[in-house]
Amino acid sequence: MGIFTKDIKTFDDLFLHQLQDVYYAENQITKALPKMIEKATAAPLKQGFTTHLKETEAQIEKLDKVFALLGEKPKGASCPAIDGIIKEANEVAGDIADKSVLDAALIASAQAVEHYEITRYGTLVSWSKQLGRGEVGTILQSILDEERATDEKLTKLAESKINLKAELETA
Amino acid sequence: MGIFTKDIKTFDDLFLHQLQDVYYAENQITKALPKMIEKATAAPLKQGFTTHLKETEAQIEKLDKVFALLGEKPKGASCPAIDGIIKEANEVAGDIADKSVLDAALIASAQAVEHYEITRYGTLVSWSKQLGRGEVGTILQSILDEERATDEKLTKLAESKINLKAELETA
Repeated sequence: MGIFTKDIKTFDDLFLHQLQDVYYAENQITKALPKMIEKATAAPLKQGFTTHLKETEAQIEKLDKVFALLGEKPKGASCPAIDGIIKEANEVAGDIADKSVLDAALIASAQAVEHYEITRYGTLVSWSKQLGRGEVGTILQSILDEERATDEKLTKLAESKINLKAELETA
Repeated sequence: MGIFTKDIKTFDDLFLHQLQDVYYAENQITKALPKMIEKATAAPLKQGFTTHLKETEAQIEKLDKVFALLGEKPKGASCPAIDGIIKEANEVAGDIADKSVLDAALIASAQAVEHYEITRYGTLVSWSKQLGRGEVGTILQSILDEERATDEKLTKLAESKINLKAELETA
Protein backbone atom coordinates (compact mmCIF):
# COMPACT_ATOMS: atom_id res chain seq x y z
CA MET A 1 0.00 0.00 0.00
CA GLY A 2 1.03 3.59 0.07
CA ILE A 3 2.81 5.38 -2.69
CA PHE A 4 0.39 4.59 -5.49
CA THR A 5 -2.68 5.44 -3.45
CA LYS A 6 -3.05 8.99 -2.27
CA ASP A 7 -6.80 9.10 -2.69
CA ILE A 8 -8.55 6.99 -0.11
CA LYS A 9 -11.68 9.01 0.50
CA THR A 10 -14.43 6.44 1.01
CA PHE A 11 -14.79 2.97 2.46
CA ASP A 12 -15.05 1.74 -1.16
CA ASP A 13 -11.67 3.34 -1.90
CA LEU A 14 -10.17 1.61 1.12
CA PHE A 15 -11.59 -1.72 -0.05
CA LEU A 16 -10.11 -1.30 -3.53
CA HIS A 17 -6.81 -0.26 -2.01
CA GLN A 18 -6.65 -3.38 0.15
CA LEU A 19 -7.52 -5.50 -2.87
CA GLN A 20 -4.62 -3.96 -4.78
CA ASP A 21 -2.42 -4.68 -1.77
CA VAL A 22 -3.19 -8.43 -1.82
CA TYR A 23 -2.88 -8.48 -5.61
CA TYR A 24 0.65 -7.12 -5.30
CA ALA A 25 1.35 -9.54 -2.42
CA GLU A 26 0.18 -12.62 -4.36
CA ASN A 27 2.33 -11.62 -7.31
CA GLN A 28 5.38 -11.19 -5.08
CA ILE A 29 4.66 -14.59 -3.54
CA THR A 30 4.70 -16.27 -6.96
CA LYS A 31 8.20 -14.81 -7.42
CA ALA A 32 9.39 -15.87 -3.94
CA LEU A 33 8.06 -19.45 -3.94
CA PRO A 34 10.32 -20.88 -6.69
CA LYS A 35 13.36 -19.84 -4.59
CA MET A 36 11.85 -21.50 -1.54
CA ILE A 37 11.14 -24.68 -3.52
CA GLU A 38 14.77 -24.69 -4.61
CA LYS A 39 16.09 -24.22 -1.07
CA ALA A 40 13.81 -26.81 0.58
CA THR A 41 15.33 -30.23 1.16
CA ALA A 42 12.56 -32.44 2.60
CA ALA A 43 10.45 -33.86 -0.24
CA PRO A 44 7.03 -33.13 1.36
CA LEU A 45 8.08 -29.51 1.93
CA LYS A 46 9.24 -29.09 -1.67
CA GLN A 47 5.95 -30.65 -2.77
CA GLY A 48 3.92 -28.44 -0.42
CA PHE A 49 5.52 -25.27 -1.76
CA THR A 50 5.01 -26.44 -5.35
CA THR A 51 1.32 -27.08 -4.71
CA HIS A 52 1.00 -23.67 -3.07
CA LEU A 53 2.63 -21.96 -6.04
CA LYS A 54 -0.06 -23.39 -8.33
CA GLU A 55 -2.73 -22.39 -5.83
CA THR A 56 -1.34 -18.85 -5.67
CA GLU A 57 -1.46 -18.56 -9.46
CA ALA A 58 -5.11 -19.66 -9.36
CA GLN A 59 -5.78 -17.12 -6.59
CA ILE A 60 -4.46 -14.34 -8.79
CA GLU A 61 -7.02 -15.40 -11.40
CA LYS A 62 -9.71 -15.27 -8.74
CA LEU A 63 -8.59 -11.74 -7.85
CA ASP A 64 -8.78 -10.80 -11.55
CA LYS A 65 -12.45 -11.84 -11.37
CA VAL A 66 -12.99 -9.72 -8.27
CA PHE A 67 -11.52 -6.67 -10.01
CA ALA A 68 -13.81 -7.37 -13.00
CA LEU A 69 -16.87 -7.59 -10.74
CA LEU A 70 -15.95 -4.19 -9.32
CA GLY A 71 -15.48 -2.77 -12.81
CA GLU A 72 -11.82 -2.13 -12.09
CA LYS A 73 -8.63 -3.11 -13.90
CA PRO A 74 -6.43 -5.56 -11.93
CA LYS A 75 -3.60 -3.54 -10.40
CA GLY A 76 -1.18 -3.99 -7.53
CA ALA A 77 -0.37 -1.38 -4.89
CA SER A 78 3.12 -1.43 -3.42
CA CYS A 79 2.98 -3.30 -0.13
CA PRO A 80 5.94 -2.83 2.24
CA ALA A 81 4.51 -5.50 4.55
CA ILE A 82 4.87 -8.44 2.17
CA ASP A 83 8.17 -7.02 0.90
CA GLY A 84 9.44 -7.04 4.51
CA ILE A 85 8.19 -10.57 5.18
CA ILE A 86 9.86 -11.92 2.03
CA LYS A 87 13.06 -9.95 2.68
CA GLU A 88 13.24 -11.43 6.16
CA ALA A 89 12.64 -14.94 4.82
CA ASN A 90 15.55 -14.55 2.40
CA GLU A 91 17.87 -13.07 5.03
CA VAL A 92 17.22 -15.86 7.51
CA ALA A 93 17.56 -18.56 4.88
CA GLY A 94 20.90 -17.04 3.90
CA ASP A 95 22.13 -17.36 7.48
CA ILE A 96 21.57 -21.11 7.79
CA ALA A 97 23.96 -23.81 6.60
CA ASP A 98 22.27 -26.97 7.93
CA LYS A 99 19.59 -28.28 5.57
CA SER A 100 17.20 -29.56 8.24
CA VAL A 101 17.35 -26.27 10.20
CA LEU A 102 16.83 -24.41 6.93
CA ASP A 103 13.68 -26.47 6.27
CA ALA A 104 12.31 -25.52 9.71
CA ALA A 105 13.05 -21.85 9.00
CA LEU A 106 11.47 -22.05 5.53
CA ILE A 107 8.23 -23.40 7.00
CA ALA A 108 8.18 -20.60 9.59
CA SER A 109 8.70 -18.03 6.82
CA ALA A 110 5.96 -19.56 4.68
CA GLN A 111 3.59 -19.42 7.65
CA ALA A 112 4.39 -15.73 8.17
CA VAL A 113 3.38 -15.19 4.53
CA GLU A 114 0.18 -17.23 5.04
CA HIS A 115 -0.76 -15.25 8.14
CA TYR A 116 -0.27 -12.00 6.29
CA GLU A 117 -2.68 -13.25 3.65
CA ILE A 118 -5.11 -14.57 6.26
CA THR A 119 -5.34 -11.19 7.97
CA ARG A 120 -5.76 -9.27 4.68
CA TYR A 121 -8.38 -11.63 3.21
CA GLY A 122 -10.13 -11.75 6.59
CA THR A 123 -10.46 -7.98 6.48
CA LEU A 124 -11.56 -8.01 2.83
CA VAL A 125 -14.26 -10.64 3.50
CA SER A 126 -15.53 -8.61 6.44
CA TRP A 127 -15.55 -5.38 4.39
CA SER A 128 -17.29 -7.17 1.47
CA LYS A 129 -20.16 -8.09 3.78
CA GLN A 130 -20.39 -4.55 5.12
CA LEU A 131 -20.44 -3.14 1.60
CA GLY A 132 -23.06 -5.67 0.45
CA ARG A 133 -20.74 -7.25 -2.12
CA GLY A 134 -21.88 -10.85 -1.84
CA GLU A 135 -20.31 -12.28 -4.98
CA VAL A 136 -16.97 -10.62 -4.34
CA GLY A 137 -17.10 -11.77 -0.72
CA THR A 138 -17.68 -15.39 -1.76
CA ILE A 139 -14.58 -15.42 -3.97
CA LEU A 140 -12.45 -13.77 -1.30
CA GLN A 141 -13.76 -16.21 1.32
CA SER A 142 -12.71 -19.13 -0.89
CA ILE A 143 -9.16 -17.72 -1.05
CA LEU A 144 -9.16 -17.14 2.72
CA ASP A 145 -10.19 -20.79 3.27
CA GLU A 146 -7.32 -21.95 1.04
CA GLU A 147 -4.78 -19.82 2.91
CA ARG A 148 -5.98 -21.17 6.25
CA ALA A 149 -5.79 -24.75 4.95
CA THR A 150 -2.24 -24.15 3.70
CA ASP A 151 -1.22 -22.72 7.07
CA GLU A 152 -2.64 -25.80 8.85
CA LYS A 153 -0.88 -28.15 6.45
CA LEU A 154 2.42 -26.37 7.12
CA THR A 155 1.90 -26.63 10.89
CA LYS A 156 1.23 -30.37 10.59
CA LEU A 157 4.25 -30.90 8.38
CA ALA A 158 6.48 -28.91 10.76
CA GLU A 159 5.26 -30.71 13.86
CA SER A 160 5.20 -34.20 12.36
CA LYS A 161 8.55 -34.19 10.59
CA ILE A 162 10.57 -31.08 9.90
CA ASN A 163 11.14 -29.79 13.44
CA LEU A 164 12.08 -33.21 14.78
CA LYS A 165 14.63 -33.63 12.01
CA ALA A 166 16.08 -30.17 12.69
CA GLU A 167 16.47 -31.00 16.35
CA LEU A 168 17.90 -34.48 15.90
CA GLU A 169 20.39 -33.51 13.25
CA THR A 170 21.84 -30.53 15.08
CA ALA A 171 21.52 -31.55 18.74
CA MET B 1 16.00 -11.05 11.62
CA GLY B 2 19.01 -10.97 9.42
CA ILE B 3 21.88 -8.59 9.79
CA PHE B 4 22.71 -9.34 13.42
CA THR B 5 22.50 -13.11 12.98
CA LYS B 6 24.99 -14.74 10.69
CA ASP B 7 25.42 -17.82 12.84
CA ILE B 8 22.36 -20.02 12.77
CA LYS B 9 23.90 -23.46 12.99
CA THR B 10 21.51 -25.47 15.14
CA PHE B 11 17.81 -25.64 15.82
CA ASP B 12 18.57 -23.96 19.17
CA ASP B 13 20.21 -21.08 17.31
CA LEU B 14 17.13 -20.73 15.11
CA PHE B 15 14.90 -20.69 18.18
CA LEU B 16 16.96 -17.94 19.83
CA HIS B 17 16.98 -16.00 16.58
CA GLN B 18 13.19 -16.14 16.29
CA LEU B 19 12.90 -15.05 19.92
CA GLN B 20 15.11 -12.04 19.18
CA ASP B 21 12.89 -11.31 16.18
CA VAL B 22 9.71 -11.11 18.29
CA TYR B 23 11.57 -9.13 20.95
CA TYR B 24 12.45 -6.52 18.34
CA ALA B 25 8.90 -6.66 16.95
CA GLU B 26 7.25 -6.12 20.35
CA ASN B 27 9.52 -3.16 21.02
CA GLN B 28 8.66 -1.62 17.63
CA ILE B 29 4.97 -2.16 18.38
CA THR B 30 5.24 -0.22 21.66
CA LYS B 31 6.60 2.68 19.58
CA ALA B 32 3.90 2.39 16.89
CA LEU B 33 0.85 2.05 19.16
CA PRO B 34 0.92 5.56 20.70
CA LYS B 35 0.65 7.01 17.18
CA MET B 36 -2.27 4.70 16.40
CA ILE B 37 -3.98 5.69 19.66
CA GLU B 38 -3.57 9.33 18.65
CA LYS B 39 -5.00 8.76 15.15
CA ALA B 40 -7.98 6.64 16.25
CA THR B 41 -11.29 8.47 16.59
CA ALA B 42 -13.81 5.92 17.92
CA ALA B 43 -13.54 5.71 21.71
CA PRO B 44 -13.59 1.88 21.92
CA LEU B 45 -10.78 1.70 19.35
CA LYS B 46 -8.65 4.22 21.23
CA GLN B 47 -9.33 2.23 24.40
CA GLY B 48 -8.53 -1.08 22.69
CA PHE B 49 -5.18 0.18 21.44
CA THR B 50 -4.37 1.63 24.88
CA THR B 51 -5.11 -1.70 26.55
CA HIS B 52 -2.98 -3.50 23.98
CA LEU B 53 -0.06 -1.13 24.58
CA LYS B 54 -0.06 -2.09 28.27
CA GLU B 55 -0.36 -5.76 27.31
CA THR B 56 2.57 -5.43 24.89
CA GLU B 57 4.74 -3.89 27.62
CA ALA B 58 3.87 -6.83 29.88
CA GLN B 59 4.68 -9.24 27.02
CA ILE B 60 8.15 -7.72 26.73
CA GLU B 61 8.65 -8.52 30.43
CA LYS B 62 7.52 -12.09 29.73
CA LEU B 63 10.08 -12.31 26.93
CA ASP B 64 12.74 -11.02 29.35
CA LYS B 65 11.88 -14.04 31.52
CA VAL B 66 12.18 -16.39 28.54
CA PHE B 67 15.64 -15.03 27.72
CA ALA B 68 16.62 -15.49 31.40
CA LEU B 69 15.40 -19.11 31.37
CA LEU B 70 17.59 -19.73 28.33
CA GLY B 71 20.57 -18.08 30.03
CA GLU B 72 20.62 -15.38 27.38
CA LYS B 73 20.56 -11.59 27.56
CA PRO B 74 17.37 -10.02 26.08
CA LYS B 75 18.26 -8.72 22.65
CA GLY B 76 16.35 -7.80 19.50
CA ALA B 77 17.23 -8.89 15.97
CA SER B 78 16.34 -6.52 13.17
CA CYS B 79 13.06 -7.70 11.61
CA PRO B 80 12.17 -6.32 8.16
CA ALA B 81 8.75 -8.00 8.38
CA ILE B 82 7.40 -5.95 11.30
CA ASP B 83 9.14 -2.85 9.94
CA GLY B 84 7.28 -3.35 6.65
CA ILE B 85 3.94 -3.96 8.35
CA ILE B 86 4.29 -0.79 10.45
CA LYS B 87 5.55 1.25 7.48
CA GLU B 88 2.52 0.16 5.47
CA ALA B 89 0.18 1.03 8.36
CA ASN B 90 1.64 4.55 8.51
CA GLU B 91 1.51 5.05 4.75
CA VAL B 92 -2.13 3.99 4.47
CA ALA B 93 -3.14 6.10 7.47
CA GLY B 94 -1.45 9.07 5.83
CA ASP B 95 -3.57 8.60 2.71
CA ILE B 96 -6.95 8.82 4.45
CA ALA B 97 -8.77 12.00 5.37
CA ASP B 98 -12.12 10.68 6.63
CA LYS B 99 -11.97 9.72 10.31
CA SER B 100 -14.32 6.74 10.13
CA VAL B 101 -12.48 5.24 7.13
CA LEU B 102 -9.21 5.85 8.97
CA ASP B 103 -10.54 3.90 11.96
CA ALA B 104 -11.41 0.95 9.68
CA ALA B 105 -7.90 1.06 8.18
CA LEU B 106 -6.27 1.31 11.63
CA ILE B 107 -8.06 -1.84 12.77
CA ALA B 108 -6.95 -3.68 9.63
CA SER B 109 -3.34 -2.57 10.25
CA ALA B 110 -3.50 -3.63 13.90
CA GLN B 111 -4.79 -7.04 12.83
CA ALA B 112 -1.89 -7.41 10.39
CA VAL B 113 0.44 -6.77 13.33
CA GLU B 114 -1.46 -9.30 15.48
CA HIS B 115 -1.28 -11.96 12.79
CA TYR B 116 2.45 -11.44 12.45
CA GLU B 117 2.77 -12.05 16.17
CA ILE B 118 0.40 -15.03 16.05
CA THR B 119 2.49 -16.77 13.40
CA ARG B 120 5.79 -16.08 15.16
CA TYR B 121 4.59 -17.14 18.63
CA GLY B 122 2.85 -20.15 17.08
CA THR B 123 6.18 -21.24 15.63
CA LEU B 124 8.03 -20.53 18.88
CA VAL B 125 5.52 -22.57 20.91
CA SER B 126 5.85 -25.45 18.47
CA TRP B 127 9.65 -25.29 18.54
CA SER B 128 9.64 -25.06 22.38
CA LYS B 129 7.80 -28.37 22.52
CA GLN B 130 10.19 -29.97 20.07
CA LEU B 131 13.17 -28.75 22.05
CA GLY B 132 11.67 -29.93 25.38
CA ARG B 133 11.50 -26.41 26.80
CA GLY B 134 8.29 -26.70 28.79
CA GLU B 135 8.59 -23.62 30.98
CA VAL B 136 9.57 -21.38 28.07
CA GLY B 137 6.75 -22.86 25.98
CA THR B 138 4.18 -22.08 28.67
CA ILE B 139 5.15 -18.40 28.76
CA LEU B 140 5.15 -18.14 24.96
CA GLN B 141 1.77 -19.90 24.79
CA SER B 142 0.33 -17.33 27.20
CA ILE B 143 1.50 -14.52 24.91
CA LEU B 144 0.10 -16.36 21.87
CA ASP B 145 -3.28 -16.66 23.63
CA GLU B 146 -3.27 -12.92 24.35
CA GLU B 147 -2.47 -12.04 20.73
CA ARG B 148 -5.26 -14.28 19.47
CA ALA B 149 -7.70 -12.72 21.95
CA THR B 150 -6.68 -9.22 20.82
CA ASP B 151 -7.19 -10.18 17.18
CA GLU B 152 -10.68 -11.52 17.96
CA LYS B 153 -11.56 -8.37 19.92
CA LEU B 154 -10.49 -6.24 16.95
CA THR B 155 -12.60 -8.33 14.55
CA LYS B 156 -15.65 -7.91 16.80
CA LEU B 157 -15.09 -4.19 17.15
CA ALA B 158 -14.67 -3.79 13.38
CA GLU B 159 -17.72 -5.84 12.51
CA SER B 160 -19.99 -4.42 15.21
CA LYS B 161 -19.20 -0.72 14.84
CA ILE B 162 -16.24 0.63 12.94
CA ASN B 163 -16.92 -0.78 9.44
CA LEU B 164 -20.60 0.22 9.54
CA LYS B 165 -19.64 3.77 10.49
CA ALA B 166 -17.05 3.92 7.68
CA GLU B 167 -19.64 2.79 5.16
CA LEU B 168 -22.46 5.02 6.36
CA GLU B 169 -20.36 8.16 6.62
CA THR B 170 -18.77 7.90 3.19
CA ALA B 171 -21.50 6.20 1.15
